[in-house]
Amino acid sequence: MEQKSVTLDEIFSPRGVAIVGVSPLKLDFAQLIVYTLKEAQFPAIYPVNPKYDEVLGLPCYPNVRAIPGTVDYVIVSIPAGSTLALLDDCAAKGVKSVQFFTAGFRESGYQEGAELEKAMLKKAKEGGFRIIGPNCTGLYVPKSRLVNYFNIPLEPGPIAFISQSGGHANNLPRYGGCRGLRFSKVVSYGNALDVDEIELMEYFTQDGETEIIAAYIEGVRDGARFRKALEEAAARKPVIIYKGGRTDAGLRAAHGHTASMTSSVAVFDALCRQYNAILVESVDEIIDTLVALRFASPLPKGTGVAFIGAGGGPSVLAGDEMEKEGLSLPRFSEETQNELKKLLPVAGSIFTNPLDTPNLATPEAIATALGVLSRVPEIDMIIYHIGFHPITSWGMGRFGSDVFLKPVIDAMLEIRKSSGKPVILAIRPPADLVGMEEFFTCQDAFVAAGFPVFNSLGMLARALFRTVRWSRARR
Amino acid sequence: MEQKSVTLDEIFSPRGVAIVGVSPLKLDFAQLIVYTLKEAQFPAIYPVNPKYDEVLGLPCYPNVRAIPGTVDYVIVSIPAGSTLALLDDCAAKGVKSVQFFTAGFRESGYQEGAELEKAMLKKAKEGGFRIIGPNCTGLYVPKSRLVNYFNIPLEPGPIAFISQSGGHANNLPRYGGCRGLRFSKVVSYGNALDVDEIELMEYFTQDGETEIIAAYIEGVRDGARFRKALEEAAARKPVIIYKGGRTDAGLRAAHGHTASMTSSVAVFDALCRQYNAILVESVDEIIDTLVALRFASPLPKGTGVAFIGAGGGPSVLAGDEMEKEGLSLPRFSEETQNELKKLLPVAGSIFTNPLDTPNLATPEAIATALGVLSRVPEIDMIIYHIGFHPITSWGMGRFGSDVFLKPVIDAMLEIRKSSGKPVILAIRPPADLVGMEEFFTCQDAFVAAGFPVFNSLGMLARALFRTVRWSRARR
Repeated sequence: MEQKSVTLDEIFSPRGVAIVGVSPLKLDFAQLIVYTLKEAQFPAIYPVNPKYDEVLGLPCYPNVRAIPGTVDYVIVSIPAGSTLALLDDCAAKGVKSVQFFTAGFRESGYQEGAELEKAMLKKAKEGGFRIIGPNCTGLYVPKSRLVNYFNIPLEPGPIAFISQSGGHANNLPRYGGCRGLRFSKVVSYGNALDVDEIELMEYFTQDGETEIIAAYIEGVRDGARFRKALEEAAARKPVIIYKGGRTDAGLRAAHGHTASMTSSVAVFDALCRQYNAILVESVDEIIDTLVALRFASPLPKGTGVAFIGAGGGPSVLAGDEMEKEGLSLPRFSEETQNELKKLLPVAGSIFTNPLDTPNLATPEAIATALGVLSRVPEIDMIIYHIGFHPITSWGMGRFGSDVFLKPVIDAMLEIRKSSGKPVILAIRPPADLVGMEEFFTCQDAFVAAGFPVFNSLGMLARALFRTVRWSRARR
Repeated sequence: MEQKSVTLDEIFSPRGVAIVGVSPLKLDFAQLIVYTLKEAQFPAIYPVNPKYDEVLGLPCYPNVRAIPGTVDYVIVSIPAGSTLALLDDCAAKGVKSVQFFTAGFRESGYQEGAELEKAMLKKAKEGGFRIIGPNCTGLYVPKSRLVNYFNIPLEPGPIAFISQSGGHANNLPRYGGCRGLRFSKVVSYGNALDVDEIELMEYFTQDGETEIIAAYIEGVRDGARFRKALEEAAARKPVIIYKGGRTDAGLRAAHGHTASMTSSVAVFDALCRQYNAILVESVDEIIDTLVALRFASPLPKGTGVAFIGAGGGPSVLAGDEMEKEGLSLPRFSEETQNELKKLLPVAGSIFTNPLDTPNLATPEAIATALGVLSRVPEIDMIIYHIGFHPITSWGMGRFGSDVFLKPVIDAMLEIRKSSGKPVILAIRPPADLVGMEEFFTCQDAFVAAGFPVFNSLGMLARALFRTVRWSRARR
C-alpha cells in the first residue's frame, strides 16, 4: 500500500537525525557526521547502536524506534544485509527519508545487491519515506544546519549541487567554500535507487533558494526525462554539468562506483550545447565556473581581457593561457600605451597587453593603471595576476598592512563599480609552507570583498570563456 | 682589440661577486641577491653604491675598482644610461662576467636601447668579459653557492635550466625544489645580447654535471645553429623545451619582454618531434616532466597504469584524466580481481582498475594490494592517489606516525625494487591552512624517499605520457 510521497522540501529540513551503525571506536563517515552535526549545533542528533550507551558524548539508542524525539532523517552505516529490518523500524517511527552511506548493493555486481535494492524501494514506498542513495554521503543543507563534512560553510547561499559521488559532494563545498561559494542544498545520491538526478534537477529549477545548479552525473537512466528536466532548468538558471566517465577507464570506474550504465559524453555534449548548459570535465572546473558565474560581476560582455602581469615570463605565459582558452587580449592603442607610459616606469615594463610593470607598488599606482585599462572600449574584463612571487613581495613588501591590501581592494571595488566591468584575481599558492599564511590572508580578503579568485591561469581562462559563451547564448 | 673569451665554466664558478646599485633602503632584486648570497655563505660579496657605507651589514664600495679582493662576477642594477662607464670599471678590474638585472634596453622598443646594447657588447669583447642579459636574473649555481632567490636548494643536482625569463628561472628551482628537483646550473639570459640559448645548449650538452636540460625560450635568432644545438643535445640527454609566445598575446608579451622575434610554435613542435625533445607549455609542465624523468624510476616501459583510487568519484575522474592524456588503464583480469577480493572488503570497492577500496588502512594492506598490481604483466607503472580528502584521514587517522607513513613508504620502495616498475604519488593540497602542515609532511616524506609526487591528476598523466613517449622514441 503506497502512501503519500514526502516532498523534497520536507527532506531538506529535518528536525531530528538518527545515525545508525555509528560506533565510538570507529573513525568512519558515521562518526564524522555525528561530529560535524554537533559542531554545527544541529538540535537533535541520535546515535543508534545496540552495543553502546554513548557516542561522542551523546546518548546512543539501541534502535530507531527507541529514540524518544521526532526523527525524520535517518543516516545508515550498517552492512547491506541488515537494511530491510532497519527500514521496518523507520516506517514505524514515521521518518521522512533514509540515507545510506552503506555500499555493497547493485554497484558490487552481484545479483543479490540488485534484488536487495528492489526490496528496499518497496519498503520505502509502503512506509511513506524516501531513500537517498544507497552508496552516498547524503545531504548538506546549511540553512537546516545539516552538514556532512568538516570545514564546509554553515552560511547558506544560492548554489545547488546534485552529485552522484559522495566524495565530490563533500569536496565541492570544502574547496569551493574557500573561494566564496555558498550552497542552498547539496545532495549526494549515489545509486539513485529512489531520489535521482531528474527529480533533483526539477526541484532545483523551481527552488526559490537556488540560483545556480551544478551536477556531477555518472549515468542517466531515463534519457528522455532527463533531457526535458535539463531543458527546463537551463532555460531558467545557469546549469553546470560534469559528466564523469568520459573514457573507458572512467566508464568502468563509474559502473563499479554507482552501477551507472553511463551515457556517452557526446550525448551530454550535444544536450548541453542545445540547451545552453555548461559542460565541464572535473570538480575543479565546476568550482572555477561557479566562481566566474557568481563573482565576475557584472558578467563580462565579451572575451576582451586587459591583463596586468606579474613579470615578463609570467606575462608571456598569461597571454598564451588566455588566448589558448578562447579569451582575447586586444593590443592596447598607442594612446592607451602613452597614457600608461606617463604613469609608470618604462624600463622593464610591457605596455601592449599584458601590461607588466615592476612598480605597481602603491594602491594609487594600481588604481590609476586599472582606471586607464577599464576605460578601453574593447576591454570586457580586467585580470590582475599576483603570480608566482611570494605574496609578501607584492607591493614591495608593503602587503598585509592596512596601507596596502585594503586600499588596493577598495580601489578595485571602485573600478568595478565605475566601469561596469569585472575585476578578476589570479593568485598562485606558494610551493611550501613559507608564505602560505600570507597567501590565504590575501586570498581571503579578495574573496570576502566579493572578487573572483583563481589559483591557475589556465583554469581562470577556461572558466571565464565558458561564462562569456553561456551569457552570450542566453541573450 | 678582442681578448680571449672567458669560458662558461669560469663564469659558473666565481670567487667574488659585486652587486652594483644595491641600496640598503630599497627592497629590490639587488638587495634580495645580497641577502640570499649571505644566507648561502657565499665567501666574497661586495655591495657597490657610492651613496652608502654598508648594506645588510657588509661594507659597501663606491665603485667596482675600489673593491679590494677578486671580483669575477658583477651583478648590475643601475639605470640603462649609466652602464657604459660601469663596463669600463669592470674591464679595469678584470671581471669575467657582468649580469644585468637592469631592463630598458632593446625590449623597450626605443632605438637608443638597441644602440646601447651594441656599445655594451663592444666593451665586453674589448674588455675580455661576457655579458649575461641584460634584463635577466642571472646565475644560480648551487655548487658555487651562487644563489639568486630565496628558498631555492643549496644542494646541487643533475638538471640544467636555460631560461629567457628571470621569473621562470627563479620559480623553477623554488617550486621544483619542493618536489625533489636539484640543479647543476640555472641561467636566466634575458635579451641574449652575448650569452644566448645556443651557447648554453651546447655547453650543457657537454657538461658532466648535467644529465637533463630544460629550456624556456621566447625567441631564437639563429635558427640553423639552434637546430643543430638542439639535435646534438637531444641525442645525448633528455631535453625539455617550453616555448613562450604561442599565441598573439603571448608573442606580443615576449617581444615586449626580451625583444624576441619569436619563431612560431609550429617550428618548435616540428623540431622537437624530429629530435625527440619534449615540448611543454608552461613552467609547471617543465617541473612535472622533470619530476617524471627523474623519479619515475625505473622509467615505465609503456603506458599501462594500475591506479589505486581515493573514493568512487575521484576514481572516475582519475580514469578519465589518465586516458585523456594518453595513458591506459587495462581492465584487471578476473584472476587479479578475485585475488584483490580475497584481500580487500568488497562493499564500496571497485576492482577493475582503478582499484578503489575504502579500507587500505594499514601498511600491510597497502603493500599487499601494490604487490598484486605490480605483478600484472600489462601494468607498467602504479599510481597511488591519496586524493582530495585531508591527508590526516589517510590510513583512517593513523597517518603521520611511524606506524603508518614510514612503513607505507618502505613497502612502496620494496615493490618498486622487486617489480622494476615505478610507483607514483598523486597528492592534492588542502583548500586552506587546515591540514597544510600534514600535507607537506606527507609530500616531503615521499619526495625524500625519491618518489615522484604530483599535485594534479591531469598534470601527472601528461608528464608520464610524455616521458613514456620520449623513452620509447629513444630506444
